[in-house]
Amino acid sequence: MQPMDTREGQSAFCPIFHQAVELIGRRWTGAIIRAMYSGCTRFSDIGHAIPGLSDRLLSERLKELESEGIVTRSVYPETPVRIEYHLTEKGRDLDAVLISISDWSNRWLEPVDQNVELRAPEPIGAG
Amino acid sequence: MQPMDTREGQSAFCPIFHQAVELIGRRWTGAIIRAMYSGCTRFSDIGHAIPGLSDRLLSERLKELESEGIVTRSVYPETPVRIEYHLTEKGRDLDAVLISISDWSNRWLEPVDQNVELRAPEPIGAG
Repeated sequence: MQPMDTREGQSAFCPIFHQAVELIGRRWTGAIIRAMYSGCTRFSDIGHAIPGLSDRLLSERLKELESEGIVTRSVYPETPVRIEYHLTEKGRDLDAVLISISDWSNRWLEPVDQNVELRAPEPIGAG
Repeated sequence: MQPMDTREGQSAFCPIFHQAVELIGRRWTGAIIRAMYSGCTRFSDIGHAIPGLSDRLLSERLKELESEGIVTRSVYPETPVRIEYHLTEKGRDLDAVLISISDWSNRWLEPVDQNVELRAPEPIGAG
């Protein structure tokens, strides 16, 4: 087995790495951050973008992300009141993480059958 | 709000991105892959590297990673029998993901006390 081609001196365990991966990887959190990245700012838009995500869980995850400083919740006193969610600087800085996961998934995962539009590339040799 | 500085035309939801983030983000999985990246190949070495991870959960996660094609389990018929776990090409290709998460965590997270299991931060005002 060749040594891993990774950063020199990488420790076997790093508490803040663990904290980050558990935070980003919490069920639905990655999908929520991606939806916000793509421009969704309203609760209902985020919810509609993600098949299978209940309002209860979306609300829970948004509160967690707010308490982690990744999302801000803004209330605009209009009629009807307007509430928007935005990624903070800390949240927007997850772009490299999202892109690396997206790239890996495009290289290695097969689209699964879902009743949603698939945007994966054509398999090699297709057509 | 400025549009996100991310890939043009990124969809709000992508099934294979969702699949990847849920896979990598499953509890302990990120830490296990990192430990294997750093060179751990034996069950006991991986287990010892990660504080708070039980043998039962390590076994479960390794089986999942094996079924996903991210880890291989090799049995060497020696006395005593030697069993090693290695990352496959698909697993090693997660390096960019691991590095991006590590970089983000170094920029944004504070080290927490290692002698406690890593979970969500204490509520504000606790204690």
